[in-house]
Amino acid sequence: METTGKAILLLHCPDRQGIITEVTGFITRNHGNIVYLDQYVDTIEKRLFMRLEWELAGFAIPRLEIKRAIDAEFEHRYDMYTGVYFSDEKPRMAIFVSKMSHCLYDLLARYRAGEWDVDIPCIVSNHEDLRFVAAQFGIPYHVWEVAPDKSNLAEVEQAEMKLLESERVSFIVLARYMQIIGDRMIERYPHNIINIHHSFLPAFVGAKPYHQAYERGVKIIGATSHYVTRELDAGPIIEQDVVRISHNDTPQSLVLKGRDLEKIVLSRAVSKHIERKILTYKNRTIVFG
Amino acid sequence: METTGKAILLLHCPDRQGIITEVTGFITRNHGNIVYLDQYVDTIEKRLFMRLEWELAGFAIPRLEIKRAIDAEFEHRYDMYTGVYFSDEKPRMAIFVSKMSHCLYDLLARYRAGEWDVDIPCIVSNHEDLRFVAAQFGIPYHVWEVAPDKSNLAEVEQAEMKLLESERVSFIVLARYMQIIGDRMIERYPHNIINIHHSFLPAFVGAKPYHQAYERGVKIIGATSHYVTRELDAGPIIEQDVVRISHNDTPQSLVLKGRDLEKIVLSRAVSKHIERKILTYKNRTIVFG
Amino acid sequence: METTGKAILLLHCPDRQGIITEVTGFITRNHGNIVYLDQYVDTIEKRLFMRLEWELAGFAIPRLEIKRAIDAEFEHRYDMYTGVYFSDEKPRMAIFVSKMSHCLYDLLARYRAGEWDVDIPCIVSNHEDLRFVAAQFGIPYHVWEVAPDKSNLAEVEQAEMKLLESERVSFIVLARYMQIIGDRMIERYPHNIINIHHSFLPAFVGAKPYHQAYERGVKIIGATSHYVTRELDAGPIIEQDVVRISHNDTPQSLVLKGRDLEKIVLSRAVSKHIERKILTYKNRTIVFG
Amino acid sequence: METTGKAILLLHCPDRQGIITEVTGFITRNHGNIVYLDQYVDTIEKRLFMRLEWELAGFAIPRLEIKRAIDAEFEHRYDMYTGVYFSDEKPRMAIFVSKMSHCLYDLLARYRAGEWDVDIPCIVSNHEDLRFVAAQFGIPYHVWEVAPDKSNLAEVEQAEMKLLESERVSFIVLARYMQIIGDRMIERYPHNIINIHHSFLPAFVGAKPYHQAYERGVKIIGATSHYVTRELDAGPIIEQDVVRISHNDTPQSLVLKGRDLEKIVLSRAVSKHIERKILTYKNRTIVFG
Repeated sequence: METTGKAILLLHCPDRQGIITEVTGFITRNHGNIVYLDQYVDTIEKRLFMRLEWELAGFAIPRLEIKRAIDAEFEHRYDMYTGVYFSDEKPRMAIFVSKMSHCLYDLLARYRAGEWDVDIPCIVSNHEDLRFVAAQFGIPYHVWEVAPDKSNLAEVEQAEMKLLESERVSFIVLARYMQIIGDRMIERYPHNIINIHHSFLPAFVGAKPYHQAYERGVKIIGATSHYVTRELDAGPIIEQDVVRISHNDTPQSLVLKGRDLEKIVLSRAVSKHIERKILTYKNRTIVFG
Repeated sequence: METTGKAILLLHCPDRQGIITEVTGFITRNHGNIVYLDQYVDTIEKRLFMRLEWELAGFAIPRLEIKRAIDAEFEHRYDMYTGVYFSDEKPRMAIFVSKMSHCLYDLLARYRAGEWDVDIPCIVSNHEDLRFVAAQFGIPYHVWEVAPDKSNLAEVEQAEMKLLESERVSFIVLARYMQIIGDRMIERYPHNIINIHHSFLPAFVGAKPYHQAYERGVKIIGATSHYVTRELDAGPIIEQDVVRISHNDTPQSLVLKGRDLEKIVLSRAVSKHIERKILTYKNRTIVFG
Repeated sequence: METTGKAILLLHCPDRQGIITEVTGFITRNHGNIVYLDQYVDTIEKRLFMRLEWELAGFAIPRLEIKRAIDAEFEHRYDMYTGVYFSDEKPRMAIFVSKMSHCLYDLLARYRAGEWDVDIPCIVSNHEDLRFVAAQFGIPYHVWEVAPDKSNLAEVEQAEMKLLESERVSFIVLARYMQIIGDRMIERYPHNIINIHHSFLPAFVGAKPYHQAYERGVKIIGATSHYVTRELDAGPIIEQDVVRISHNDTPQSLVLKGRDLEKIVLSRAVSKHIERKILTYKNRTIVFG
Repeated sequence: METTGKAILLLHCPDRQGIITEVTGFITRNHGNIVYLDQYVDTIEKRLFMRLEWELAGFAIPRLEIKRAIDAEFEHRYDMYTGVYFSDEKPRMAIFVSKMSHCLYDLLARYRAGEWDVDIPCIVSNHEDLRFVAAQFGIPYHVWEVAPDKSNLAEVEQAEMKLLESERVSFIVLARYMQIIGDRMIERYPHNIINIHHSFLPAFVGAKPYHQAYERGVKIIGATSHYVTRELDAGPIIEQDVVRISHNDTPQSLVLKGRDLEKIVLSRAVSKHIERKILTYKNRTIVFG
């Protein structure tokens, strides 16, 4: 059987002399042709972060054995955390939305244009509003409305997680989903739920950040994409960007300018996640170029 | 006696129909040639902000009577706040510094190169460290050391204010001056004390913002120049700018990148202040182009 | 008959004393409540540019007479060029595309989300490729293929112009339309054809700018939206933006990064055009805030 | 004798499997503790670029033998170009200026503040104008005036090169030096002469770029630092940055905004050069983070 495609290894461990030589030597010795290597040493944490990509054709270790073989070699010796991925296994992405269409359209337009090596099996919402967008792109749209008193929240989340399981979803994108994600889902998808917050975090945490920005009279507004953790708007930041504003701007015009930021900042984070170029450590991300 | 130069009128008032026509008509009727007009209506506050500049040559009202004449005409009718300045009366700027030279050098280099229509009669510090810079540029350097227990703070401030009075200082620039300004001085120079804060406010208020930024793992850092008010780091923002960072950056490299931001953000605020292009209202600034 | 909505006046003329007073006085005298005024004096060209907006309710001059009345008052006296528009008359926008979908999706998503006060009666193309996108949004898609030897170009253009006339199109957006627009169409829609060029003009005029950028080893790439004139890529620039790149980028990754720039730069230009906030003079644009 | 400090190895060669393992293995085998490794593979040129830093303490190869030893091991085997530097050998930088002080002040203020590990033994000029700045910082200032007919150009250049030799200058910074550098000097200091061009190259090559930018009506202006080669303004670009402008800007205000860009873009290039983080290949630079 012909093995094609590439393997991707993400790792981090306490920095010690010779690790790069050891790891690249291991791949080379097993006839893997390394086509990408990026590494970064956090000199404060004294920790090495590394991303390797090599061609599977001719590689001596069968695909399903690779992670085990690498861990057998390095896990204990270097106290190493590893993740192994394959370029021909597309991540499966679920999109959660509420009522605003701009991020959803941007994600789906990129998907349809073939920008991303990803599958989008489903869109989940707490409102019917954007069903027509899902229909335009022929993607199943699932609605679970949450009661005003949130009494059915656990039930809704259980139903959503059942869907995500059955669709073998590997990560979730909250495309301006205006509802808090429950702890069970966060635990099930650790560092696999990407949110877009419509401010330059940590400024303006919480609701109505554009109104907060207007009140404070800032001259620049921003948007932040981050992994969702239990603490609201406090997870590891993946990407941020900003745009200059002036006294001319009203809360309404900030909302419009902000939308454009949200789209680009979310999509950059999704790109990096799909390419498996993000490592997280102590609430900070390492994002390789 | 020949009157030359230009008069500058800054005003704001509740927005009502015809004010622009009235005000420009008043200047024109008195033979003032308007060379600059900028105005902005805050549609939320329903308030008009305006900046006018006209040539004094041939103007029917004597220089010293202009503010009184304008106020007599408009103050009560339109509930108008006005400020009148003259292009040939240079603002006199005091610089307060502590130990870091980068902002001070940048300000003095611009001053020496003739970028600004300003006088700098004195530099004030709480440390001896930068006396050599003042000496390089031949500007008097005054040091008042504050006791560790701050027991002499009132006394120091009194001495400083006496100096500022005798030097007829019109505004103060805190060029990384690492000490809180007392309320008496703030009241004496309302919206005439410009500070540079080394973060993108309101993120990272207070001390060591670069360390806070590092801890939070942000992907962009900023700097903010603002007028000093009684509440720490909460005065009206004049200018902000940002620079992209990455996981590669340490607190130390953030400090270096931040310095470059601080210099440019502070100097842009000082420029606008010298040109009398800033109006403040309810903790927000209107900065004309 | 009740008159509602707002009138918009765009004008430019040689700068002379009192024009602003005269024009705002004219509107006020006729009971027009001015809700927006922006003006700019080009001190080099000695020319005044102005944009006024006032409420039609209660205005003494009937809608259809306004332009004539203003011109009667000012045209000869001040050598003034004027344009009068009405907020309740939506511009009608045609989109021209070829094979790339990113700008088209972005424009249509904004249109559908109600960001713009515009009608889009038709999409025109030289290829069938994007018919499916038009179908997703229910907008008629018209294809005229140009022969490789361009022998049918005049004929195609005539057919296109007939369509544009029958659809009462007021302006055209070239959303990565990879074909040169003929002089007849340019003359029929002066400063009403907006193109997006995928470089920071005037760098990299012509074909394959991302490859040119890669070859030159620039550290920043850009995109430029401009009005189409007879000279290729040389019309008045409306908006530009840039993104930082590095040695890591290949021509392919530049193309992807560039797409995001193209979308935002084109949409900002379209916004300003729809809001009638752009004046052009001597191949430069004045874009009001 | 105690050996301290770090060695820096810059290399590039055709990309082949195992090179990173080989090179890092060589250093490790000789007891060098690697503290920095960055590498980049240009997949189009199929070429590897790498920067390594290791502690000299305990390194088995004497300092003066290191380059020879590395070349003996790899030069022929991998067709490798190498450069070896030592952290305790400060580069010696000459600054060339004409009449504008802004870049000179910025460079000297950084030098004086200890931002850079560099020596500045001399400032060279074709005019007397900035002698006072050199005097402020106590650095020798040498003037050679070039005759209007350039008849003494060869003679001047010979004198300058003699000075540079005697001062053991390792690289030259043209801080708005308004005169073309001769081929002999370029050949003597290959990729060691850094220029700041006051435009976003390749837009606006040559003289008066701000006036060109104004004429073209661009909405963004830039500055470019690059190594000087024989072709004017066409050498490898090290760093670029831009700032947004508007119709409000005149050629004069562009000059002022441009100065701020020039300072920061030049200083970033000088920083990277001093840190030996720049490799050049085929008129493009690889700048490590």
